[in-house]
Amino acid sequence: MASHERINPATVRKARTVRKWDLEADVVVVGYGCAGACATIEAAEAGADVLLLERASGGGGTSALSGGLIYMGGGTPVQKACGFEDTPEEMYKFLITALGPGVDEAKVRVFCDESVAHFHWFERHGVPFKPSFYPEPGSEAPTDDCLIYTGGEDAYPFDRIAKPAPRGHKPQHPAAAGGFLMQKLVAATERSGARIECDVRCETLVVNEHGRVVGVVVWQDKRRRFVRARRGVVLTAGGFTMNQEMVARHTPLIWKCSYKLGVDGDDGRAIRMAMGAGADIIHMDAAEVAIPLTPPRRLMRGILVNRVGQRFINEDTYYGRVGQESLFRQDAHMYLIVDNTIYERNAAGFEATHVEETVADLEKSIGLPTGSLQGTVEYYNRFAAQGEDPLFHKTPALLQTLTNPPYAAIDCRTDKVLWATFTLGGLHTQPTGEVLNPDGQVIPGLYAAGRTTSGLAAHGYCSGISLGDGSFFGRKAGRSAAMANAPT
Amino acid sequence: MASHERINPATVRKARTVRKWDLEADVVVVGYGCAGACATIEAAEAGADVLLLERASGGGGTSALSGGLIYMGGGTPVQKACGFEDTPEEMYKFLITALGPGVDEAKVRVFCDESVAHFHWFERHGVPFKPSFYPEPGSEAPTDDCLIYTGGEDAYPFDRIAKPAPRGHKPQHPAAAGGFLMQKLVAATERSGARIECDVRCETLVVNEHGRVVGVVVWQDKRRRFVRARRGVVLTAGGFTMNQEMVARHTPLIWKCSYKLGVDGDDGRAIRMAMGAGADIIHMDAAEVAIPLTPPRRLMRGILVNRVGQRFINEDTYYGRVGQESLFRQDAHMYLIVDNTIYERNAAGFEATHVEETVADLEKSIGLPTGSLQGTVEYYNRFAAQGEDPLFHKTPALLQTLTNPPYAAIDCRTDKVLWATFTLGGLHTQPTGEVLNPDGQVIPGLYAAGRTTSGLAAHGYCSGISLGDGSFFGRKAGRSAAMANAPT
Repeated sequence: MASHERINPATVRKARTVRKWDLEADVVVVGYGCAGACATIEAAEAGADVLLLERASGGGGTSALSGGLIYMGGGTPVQKACGFEDTPEEMYKFLITALGPGVDEAKVRVFCDESVAHFHWFERHGVPFKPSFYPEPGSEAPTDDCLIYTGGEDAYPFDRIAKPAPRGHKPQHPAAAGGFLMQKLVAATERSGARIECDVRCETLVVNEHGRVVGVVVWQDKRRRFVRARRGVVLTAGGFTMNQEMVARHTPLIWKCSYKLGVDGDDGRAIRMAMGAGADIIHMDAAEVAIPLTPPRRLMRGILVNRVGQRFINEDTYYGRVGQESLFRQDAHMYLIVDNTIYERNAAGFEATHVEETVADLEKSIGLPTGSLQGTVEYYNRFAAQGEDPLFHKTPALLQTLTNPPYAAIDCRTDKVLWATFTLGGLHTQPTGEVLNPDGQVIPGLYAAGRTTSGLAAHGYCSGISLGDGSFFGRKAGRSAAMANAPT
Repeated sequence: MASHERINPATVRKARTVRKWDLEADVVVVGYGCAGACATIEAAEAGADVLLLERASGGGGTSALSGGLIYMGGGTPVQKACGFEDTPEEMYKFLITALGPGVDEAKVRVFCDESVAHFHWFERHGVPFKPSFYPEPGSEAPTDDCLIYTGGEDAYPFDRIAKPAPRGHKPQHPAAAGGFLMQKLVAATERSGARIECDVRCETLVVNEHGRVVGVVVWQDKRRRFVRARRGVVLTAGGFTMNQEMVARHTPLIWKCSYKLGVDGDDGRAIRMAMGAGADIIHMDAAEVAIPLTPPRRLMRGILVNRVGQRFINEDTYYGRVGQESLFRQDAHMYLIVDNTIYERNAAGFEATHVEETVADLEKSIGLPTGSLQGTVEYYNRFAAQGEDPLFHKTPALLQTLTNPPYAAIDCRTDKVLWATFTLGGLHTQPTGEVLNPDGQVIPGLYAAGRTTSGLAAHGYCSGISLGDGSFFGRKAGRSAAMANAPT
């Protein structure tokens, strides 16, 4: 238990011990990030009396710290305007592969089938998108342009699995648009008629004698209060990125990443609250791990090597894929090798840590095994000269021999450059947002979305998936809760 | 819920709804494998009235299917007789590294400190060990010899971290000794005075109004019965290897392994029963994954390469480490490359799948990228001739150039050869065997050990760890339960 926790979240409160409800609503939403805002709006529009509770002093959460990319496709107006063909089926084929292993096929299916409608929902709720494409993949555009490749859709192996299309949609705002997106969603939430209470810490769930979740115990105005949820509680309170103990139990490798993408509220409390009511947790080892090596895209002409000087991935793939591959499979020990033609300081400020006139000297300077990097560069150059990458199939346009000295390395270990991470595991939910117990049964009255849950990304990741599934399944959860029967 | 489950295990039974207890004991142990037998014996010796419940028709469980290796060290009589020096500190340094990341240091500490005493406990309870060493590492001896290296202790990198000592102890019985070990433990359990009931399926836990576990609902003689546990319930009912849904949720990659090491009871039911009472689950992605390539040890003179013809590990390490590395990091796509000097059919019957006169032809025959295997073999041979392995530090005694045609490959993919697996994740417990909830608090009356828990092996593994920690922490759990205060 973290020291600031007044009540252990996993210890549920029995409804019969609640003498008086201080607040009541049909639907109580816990957490005011993207998923919580969308759940609230949708529940309110479905006619429910909604109460949204937020621990911080205002809406935003980790969503507001993000780049604002939302993964949408299947033929959105922006995709069409930019000349990209896409269908729900191609989107499905891509996601089912890129987000695995362990993907929830039913969730991916509905997410793809209803993605265009979801785009229109955002527009209707005041989130604007410029019908433009930005060609540097991976991260949000520094401009107010919308569409980018955010998951390696146009790189090996996905370019052979599904027809490539960019699907990262950024609201029309210069550079990172997470704050802007949340401003718009906060405005829409306020318009929805829902009651919003900030500076409220949710402590534990209230469960009745049938195991149904009927409310929340909160700490507000320096006292404990009891909040009744007539139809359901929706948990949208983030992941457990900031909880060192939970990270150690479930995904210990990510703790070494220097930048934990989250706010204080990402302490796994909502996950533990739900577990107290009997919820299952799944894919708890999964995490987004991104090292923003590229942009600029031109740096993809270099080669990434591991601790023994071997290449291990096509450098033109999504940098979040590079990060996951490196952390989980290569001990986060990685160097980007370039020559003088390719080298430049990257967008995140990464600079060369080793510069030498020959590859042999570079190898020695880094401390790689004798001959290892030399062999790797020779092999790479031999085929790059023919426009081929037999090992990892980097796109021919980015294949360029490394032959112009000096040669340089960027040491990409976790203590050297920025590694960003957040957790992907969480509550096991249905596509409806209903929370499941370990036997696969629905826990009545309990719903969840966003990083409190295991969403679309079972183990893989693409930028835009968290706002994408948080908003999409937040809406589903809000609607499900609003339509639920009140307990008799 | 599996179709044979009459009650959802995660749905606890409230004590106040139990009208009559059909059976009572101080301590109720669920599951009669190694951990359950040891828990029962220890609890009975501590003076408790113990009832052991087993779903099958007799004791044994997955333990009886095993090789019978028990990981013990720190200077056991067998280690001393065979001339191996070992200390609890060297054992600790090894295990803390080999079983990580995410190791529970307190568990490893007590396991090492009390390992010699644990050896004597086995002897006192009728399990004999021959004071002899068998030089082929990895798996149990085909003879009745005792001691072997079972975790790569004498190979890189562990040989540089801790002083190598073999710690796998096999009871004195020819070849696989798991059945023999369980015969001896069953005899000791019967002598202990505990009551033993087989053909009893435990359905769910009974919990009182304070959240304390006070009993178990069982199915016996075609009817439901209620079993009261005055001091505690000890869950030692195996992992979830045989439950496809749980594997998909937690560690999907292992499902492709052809040999799931378990019995029907390894369906995760005990884990879900405990979750129903509020237990946390940790390291659920972890699994033992072994491909018995070696023995014979001479095959370690070959090289293991991945799908692009690169080496990725020192071939002289423990084959369970090879299996984990290959499945979790190399997509289970692996070939053993040998020449005519090295080749032989291995102990598990693996045979060459590709034979060619040149490495270039072998590369082509396998379908590896052009030049990849050739480069790997050239590099390997260049340094092997000097007694060096700059990449992975295979021991010089096993470095031998691959120069005598024909050359051969053994295709080691999961659909080609035997891959054995079982799950390592489970309940979060204290070294005492007490089960913790997601807030790190003890659940009163609930104890667990063996593969129902996350034990010593957080993510790594060594042969002998499961019987090792199952027996050791089974004893701890049995004693803790026996010494617990009965609820007032």
